[in-house]
Amino acid sequence: MAENRENIRLSAEEISGGDQESSPFGFDFVIVGATGDLTMRKLLPAFYERFRGDQIDGTTKIIGTARSPLSSEEYRTKAAEALKAFVAAETYDASKAEAFLRLLHYVPLDMTEQNADWSALSSLLKTEKGRPRVFYLATAPKLYVPTADAIAHNSLITDTTRIVLEKPIGTDLASATAINDGVGQHFRENQIFRIDHYLGKQTVQNILALRFANPIIERIWNADSIAHVQITASETVGVGQRGSYYDTAGALRDMVQNHLLQVLSFVAMEPPTAIAPTVLRDEKLKILRALRPMTDDMIRTDTVRAQYAAGEVDGTTVGSYLDDLEDGESTTETYLAIRAEIRTARWAGVPFYIRTGKRLAQKETTVIVQFRPQPWAIFPDKPEPGRLVIRIQPNEGISLSLSSKDPSTEQFCLREASLDVSYEKAFNTRYPDSYEDLLMAAVRGDQVSFIRRDEVEASWHWVEPILNGWAANIRPLETYPAGSRGPKSADDLLARNDFVWKELTDAC
Amino acid sequence: MAENRENIRLSAEEISGGDQESSPFGFDFVIVGATGDLTMRKLLPAFYERFRGDQIDGTTKIIGTARSPLSSEEYRTKAAEALKAFVAAETYDASKAEAFLRLLHYVPLDMTEQNADWSALSSLLKTEKGRPRVFYLATAPKLYVPTADAIAHNSLITDTTRIVLEKPIGTDLASATAINDGVGQHFRENQIFRIDHYLGKQTVQNILALRFANPIIERIWNADSIAHVQITASETVGVGQRGSYYDTAGALRDMVQNHLLQVLSFVAMEPPTAIAPTVLRDEKLKILRALRPMTDDMIRTDTVRAQYAAGEVDGTTVGSYLDDLEDGESTTETYLAIRAEIRTARWAGVPFYIRTGKRLAQKETTVIVQFRPQPWAIFPDKPEPGRLVIRIQPNEGISLSLSSKDPSTEQFCLREASLDVSYEKAFNTRYPDSYEDLLMAAVRGDQVSFIRRDEVEASWHWVEPILNGWAANIRPLETYPAGSRGPKSADDLLARNDFVWKELTDAC
Repeated sequence: MAENRENIRLSAEEISGGDQESSPFGFDFVIVGATGDLTMRKLLPAFYERFRGDQIDGTTKIIGTARSPLSSEEYRTKAAEALKAFVAAETYDASKAEAFLRLLHYVPLDMTEQNADWSALSSLLKTEKGRPRVFYLATAPKLYVPTADAIAHNSLITDTTRIVLEKPIGTDLASATAINDGVGQHFRENQIFRIDHYLGKQTVQNILALRFANPIIERIWNADSIAHVQITASETVGVGQRGSYYDTAGALRDMVQNHLLQVLSFVAMEPPTAIAPTVLRDEKLKILRALRPMTDDMIRTDTVRAQYAAGEVDGTTVGSYLDDLEDGESTTETYLAIRAEIRTARWAGVPFYIRTGKRLAQKETTVIVQFRPQPWAIFPDKPEPGRLVIRIQPNEGISLSLSSKDPSTEQFCLREASLDVSYEKAFNTRYPDSYEDLLMAAVRGDQVSFIRRDEVEASWHWVEPILNGWAANIRPLETYPAGSRGPKSADDLLARNDFVWKELTDAC
Repeated sequence: MAENRENIRLSAEEISGGDQESSPFGFDFVIVGATGDLTMRKLLPAFYERFRGDQIDGTTKIIGTARSPLSSEEYRTKAAEALKAFVAAETYDASKAEAFLRLLHYVPLDMTEQNADWSALSSLLKTEKGRPRVFYLATAPKLYVPTADAIAHNSLITDTTRIVLEKPIGTDLASATAINDGVGQHFRENQIFRIDHYLGKQTVQNILALRFANPIIERIWNADSIAHVQITASETVGVGQRGSYYDTAGALRDMVQNHLLQVLSFVAMEPPTAIAPTVLRDEKLKILRALRPMTDDMIRTDTVRAQYAAGEVDGTTVGSYLDDLEDGESTTETYLAIRAEIRTARWAGVPFYIRTGKRLAQKETTVIVQFRPQPWAIFPDKPEPGRLVIRIQPNEGISLSLSSKDPSTEQFCLREASLDVSYEKAFNTRYPDSYEDLLMAAVRGDQVSFIRRDEVEASWHWVEPILNGWAANIRPLETYPAGSRGPKSADDLLARNDFVWKELTDAC
């Protein structure tokens, strides 16, 4: 026990590098690209919630910068509208919002220009020792290095300064390495917070609790009991206004390289010795590096890429991906399915299927852990193999399907019954947006939910051969009707091992 | 696969000894003691349900016998009232009830009198080969042997005749052996159906499905993962009209020797090779014989016996057990708690706590499988060890409590969340009464849910030293207030191992 406490104390220190307390405290938070959508929809509402929750004190400054020549007053007006629009009605309080808006400032400044006039920004930043200072780069990745250079040039990096980088970190291994090198010129790795909002999701974090706080789960969490894992992130929306960005990325870069490989590493990692940045990320890295490299043969047989054609979503006719693009020519995938393997003793022979796409039949992000069937059935029916469904979103929760005796039959017939928990019901609490946790963690200097340099690079290392293989058309691009469950080839990918996707529209 | 089918085919044959089909068929069913409470409340409503469900054809005869000089018509009138009173409103159908009543016959006959006039009964019984004939003894156990003798004397035992014995089979090992010997003079063991209505409960049968149709459950079902098991059968009622019988029995004979040891053997048994009478009962027997014999020392430290004192149940003041008895003098226990041990590799060091009582705070029968705690917590809080709650009644279902991340906290705090299934909701079906399954199984000759002779005797073998020890006052009788959770000593029994009873009034 004494040892155990020690362990926790050490890791708490390691976690923090800043203030662990939940009493309100002050900090300076500079949002670079502060007039954009992300700031208005996510960052300001997230800070508002934490201000309302008494975690942010009145000395705090949230400083927007961008090229638009706004005054702080004009920025607050814009922010006030954003709060009204994007804060949930239950938590919106006009007088709280007004008090919060007083923390906001705006400085018109192109932060990639190191020789611009930075004095207005500098003079807003407090210099007292230990005060957290965060630069949040909500800009295009190509601006990360020039911005970091300019911040350094203007001597704004203190010991407790952090830089938050939004995805994507590059478009391939070389560009990711260049960003990491460039930002790393000025910031130590423990000052660099690469955000992946999936790691801010309670349901993703809960994978750790599920596995490592419940010995019975960990006992069955291996190739002895698990036949395969399905990680699905499906959307009903198309590319919308993001078409010009999306077309340069595609589903593999946009969803897999970051979010879904992170989820996969949570599902597959060995137990860390603490929930602490270094040891936890070491374990994720181990999994990312254990992913079996995709050869051309595997790209041909173990991947599916597709683009949505016109179709119908929720009864409305919608156009194809090409219709949604302005120039109407593209081989970018809006859907993919990949069969991945993890070369560890725990996971030998257990396929991890990753599937994501736009314009599908259902919006859901789930992890399905499919158990092995009963090898020797003692009942008249062969029981269905059970499964654990982790609903990351929506309807956050967990469901465990087990075979039960059907009470309506005389003989011993089996039927599936699902034990279920909805977190919202179980905890009867507001479900915080991912950004709330993540922004406050960046302020506190807690890196546990942020991606380390080596993780980004290991992910690209695994993804890049697929990108290249697809670019070389080793696996041809298919199409699927908008509103469908994706191309049939994705079903074939599982059928080869006698598996089936849990249908998007199945109840859990 | 071929082997597996073979296995099922064999066991189906072994199960049946009769007709496996669910199409309606005919049989003769003699109820001995047909004017009693059990017949009216349970047996006739159960047959009605199966008649309504098209499992019983029009050639069937349900023949009541007792000493009362009723005509068949008078008996049908009595039965008609019973159906109205005890069949659920949703399933009661006047015309179905009328058709069902036509299957009923009554013969005034003392069936312990072998030289009485049996001709009326004999002439009602069909003699065609293979037709099931059942004698159901709803009488006092002391009448079982004389009744069997008389049935044999009157040559009413065909190859497809079965005898059903209600509990209790004796009051100790010697009297149980005498009944088994006496009835065994005339009936082969595969014709003797010792009923335990707990085995007719879908939720008890489902313990087999839960364990043996779900490999992940069986994988954690042992001393590595399980710290202890609690089997609770609590009632809020007192002895009511049953005082004079109950006072000769007590909780140990009335509940433990039969029902709760059967539940324990379902929870603890090794996997049988089929759900078939011989192999399944072999496994139960193995557990009953592996129960560690109770020495005087163990009776002193590992048992608690108590009697209810006056108290309050659901806001109503109620008298003590002694008040409820006519003569007001008794050392019979209405409550007990026992710490049992099973000497097998699977269960070494895992206490099985059994608790039952009348006039307790709550009516519920549950099995709680308490898992071992996480030996090395990597979270700020030490997680609660999880548990599986099998709700046998009421609110039939299963609940699995796991530690989850509390979404309302910034740091990695844990809270318990329960995955739950209610069978009634999951299966959306009427929950049949135990007797429905059991009566039809007796008709079909399926012994899988009936107790074999050696099981009865092994149970008495374990129970008898406790009875004797209590009679010798090795463990003094305590009292507990009616409406309470039982005596404090029962808590102490678990506290010794750092365990606690799941409180009767806790939500699952």
